Amino acid sequence: MAQQAARIRNSVSQAIAELSAVFGERLSTAEAVRVQHGDDLTWNPGVAPDAVAFAESTDEVQKAVSICGKYRFPIIPFGTGTSLEGHISAPLGGVSIDVSHMNRVLEVHQEDLDCRVEAGVTRKQLNQYLHDCGLFFPIDPGADASLGGMAATRASGTNAVRYGTMRENVLNLTAVMPNGEIIQTAKRAKKSSAGYDLTRLLVGSEGTLGVITEVGLRLHGIPDSIAGGVCPFPSVDAACNATILTIQLGIPVARIELLDSEHIKAVNTYSGLELSPVPTLFVEFHGTEAGTREQSEMFGEIAGELGGGPFDWVTKTEDRNRLWQARHDAFWAVKTMVPGKQAFATDACVPISRLAECVTETQRDAAEHNLYAPILGHVGDGNFHVVLFCDRDDPEDYANVCGFCDRLASRAIAMDGTCTGEHGVGQGKMKFLDAEHGPALEFMRTIKRAFDPQNIMNPGKIVQV
Amino acid sequence: MAQQAARIRNSVSQAIAELSAVFGERLSTAEAVRVQHGDDLTWNPGVAPDAVAFAESTDEVQKAVSICGKYRFPIIPFGTGTSLEGHISAPLGGVSIDVSHMNRVLEVHQEDLDCRVEAGVTRKQLNQYLHDCGLFFPIDPGADASLGGMAATRASGTNAVRYGTMRENVLNLTAVMPNGEIIQTAKRAKKSSAGYDLTRLLVGSEGTLGVITEVGLRLHGIPDSIAGGVCPFPSVDAACNATILTIQLGIPVARIELLDSEHIKAVNTYSGLELSPVPTLFVEFHGTEAGTREQSEMFGEIAGELGGGPFDWVTKTEDRNRLWQARHDAFWAVKTMVPGKQAFATDACVPISRLAECVTETQRDAAEHNLYAPILGHVGDGNFHVVLFCDRDDPEDYANVCGFCDRLASRAIAMDGTCTGEHGVGQGKMKFLDAEHGPALEFMRTIKRAFDPQNIMNPGKIVQV
Repeated sequence: MAQQAARIRNSVSQAIAELSAVFGERLSTAEAVRVQHGDDLTWNPGVAPDAVAFAESTDEVQKAVSICGKYRFPIIPFGTGTSLEGHISAPLGGVSIDVSHMNRVLEVHQEDLDCRVEAGVTRKQLNQYLHDCGLFFPIDPGADASLGGMAATRASGTNAVRYGTMRENVLNLTAVMPNGEIIQTAKRAKKSSAGYDLTRLLVGSEGTLGVITEVGLRLHGIPDSIAGGVCPFPSVDAACNATILTIQLGIPVARIELLDSEHIKAVNTYSGLELSPVPTLFVEFHGTEAGTREQSEMFGEIAGELGGGPFDWVTKTEDRNRLWQARHDAFWAVKTMVPGKQAFATDACVPISRLAECVTETQRDAAEHNLYAPILGHVGDGNFHVVLFCDRDDPEDYANVCGFCDRLASRAIAMDGTCTGEHGVGQGKMKFLDAEHGPALEFMRTIKRAFDPQNIMNPGKIVQV
Repeated sequence: MAQQAARIRNSVSQAIAELSAVFGERLSTAEAVRVQHGDDLTWNPGVAPDAVAFAESTDEVQKAVSICGKYRFPIIPFGTGTSLEGHISAPLGGVSIDVSHMNRVLEVHQEDLDCRVEAGVTRKQLNQYLHDCGLFFPIDPGADASLGGMAATRASGTNAVRYGTMRENVLNLTAVMPNGEIIQTAKRAKKSSAGYDLTRLLVGSEGTLGVITEVGLRLHGIPDSIAGGVCPFPSVDAACNATILTIQLGIPVARIELLDSEHIKAVNTYSGLELSPVPTLFVEFHGTEAGTREQSEMFGEIAGELGGGPFDWVTKTEDRNRLWQARHDAFWAVKTMVPGKQAFATDACVPISRLAECVTETQRDAAEHNLYAPILGHVGDGNFHVVLFCDRDDPEDYANVCGFCDRLASRAIAMDGTCTGEHGVGQGKMKFLDAEHGPALEFMRTIKRAFDPQNIMNPGKIVQV
């Protein structure tokens, strides 16, 4: 690895010169631009790339990849920079390929419920574009991320319990591969048995197998009726059990989010709500008016049986939006609770039957180690986030937080879960993959080596080769 | 390829001797057994393997793979032999690994809505096992196939429009890889962003990357209410448009199947129904009683607007079962219409907006070439089947049918669709993959070479390397 780094350094200037010839003023080596492109939303000090290229087309990306291949110069794809696991850092240097200028919605096929966008289109931009035709794209990670980045990290969010994650909602991808080939991974048919699933291989590959430049996406009709509300519970356990029962009974809940009492206190202050400071489920149902009413009633009964409630059912759009805005702002709300420290979110996902146990053990662990660690979960999927606070200049604090994260990942894996449900591996979670995947990990390395023998595509992420 | 075949032949006897030592009487070289294992449900004369090993555990499969690796002896995984594209044929010889004895349901996690089965468990066996706990597994290809085989071919069926295909319903897999490693592709969490999606890579790999020995599956609650019925339409076009509108309005239809007039005539005779001999949709809704009633009414209105109807709504379980049994027997029904010829089904899948056009052009093509070619479709997915009849000893008839199949695949691909929605590539559809995938096909070959450098895993299927 050290030798490779040295070799790369020697050809940095040639590579940048050739990239400059392609990108002109859209290639920047200014420090501020480089630093911004290496830093993500986490506590990790990102390593800045040697240069940033603002690409405007798949062809330009292809030219950049060809140049980088020639000089073995790393390529780090960049969407909106909202990564949570160090995906965009450049530990071996290289060029950050910023696709944010590639922000055109290329095609919308209303009858087929699908569309095609350039990788830099963000989820909110797409939904704004789609609004008038009665369609929407449901995947909603916290940030207004780019759809290319969301595909690359296999993102999900609050709607995944009903609509799936990027895994289920990417129809096909256009990508520039490490050898400079442009491929489209599949046609537009809703299903196919025609060969290996390259779409799903690239979804979640975090830029290590190719640069995603266009994304075909499944869309959904905006439901006639959206209803839901908030429901307090006496314990995390009761809230989790209500979730399990809701899903087991086949109630097609669109969102079911757990906020622990710490989160509720924080959002009450931050967003001016007046919720009881107890574990609370935020739920939403999509369907016809009769359907959502029926679902809401069934959920209310389940909640009541488990000691929860009253279920405060909200139908007015503005009230509902206020609640969900508060939910989406939950990270910023808890962040204000510990001024002066860096905040970041980690995530884990377990089979739903183990969720209450995993959350409870995690809370106990935090208490034992004197950590303020509010928890929030996409509980319908068994996925939850812990927000952590750290003073990186305090080695003891740092070690304490790191230890907690390690134990959380190991705990989730031991419960037949995963070290990350939706944030991705990046640099932050590489060390857990051996425990999670065992001998399967070597086949991930095999794929990486076969596709990218020069290791130029976002090297040092997911797997070390 | 010829050299490889010759090399393989030389070591056949050693390989079989070592396999015999492992499998004892469960290794057969009897001609009848071998021939049965090379022949699928198609018109293609299958090539029998050199031997058949009836495996009883993952460990035994591993031993077999290790022996085969040593002698470069091909391995052809075998479930129930219901392949439709020559997946189980042994064009280069080798051993058929029959997993039908591996038929234990290993785990059912009711709270998590998932289970784990050995690869030889069939879909009907699983559903029988699950019935008492109120859960079911929805994927239903025509045959009572093994779940390992269904995963390997990325199978789907009539419920896919609502519940997805094997791609969406396989949670993880245990497989013996070409180098003899046993891997589990993922843990049991409902979602994960922890590395490359090996599960989806093996789903649809048709035994060319490894032998699937265990499958983790998502389950679903048996709905409170199942309702539906049949609805005649004046044309294929009208039926397709009704389907598009149903899906666009977000009506969560569980099944929506088109039978053309030829199919209706055949099922009337075969199953004693009295349906009008016109294009007809078989539909089914799953949900609460109020929900399915509402959905049925909405569908009836849509059908009426498009000139279809009356929608004959059936709620009695026995009437519904009779209809769906007729639907499932449709292949056998049309088969009786042309006695003396071999019948087989081919499939294609297009974006739903192109479905009516694709079906109509296909019907015209059949008429022009004097072919009886009844059509049946999982129209909610844009997927349809054509049943064809051929006298293989008549070169003209054979060429005529082959030409029709080629044009169908090309037509689907030209409409941004796929040469196979659910039957798989096998040997039968390899020649279309270049047109469908272009430069992406080379990355499929790259994966095959990297995973299976000796080309021992079901060689001569999907991609030629």
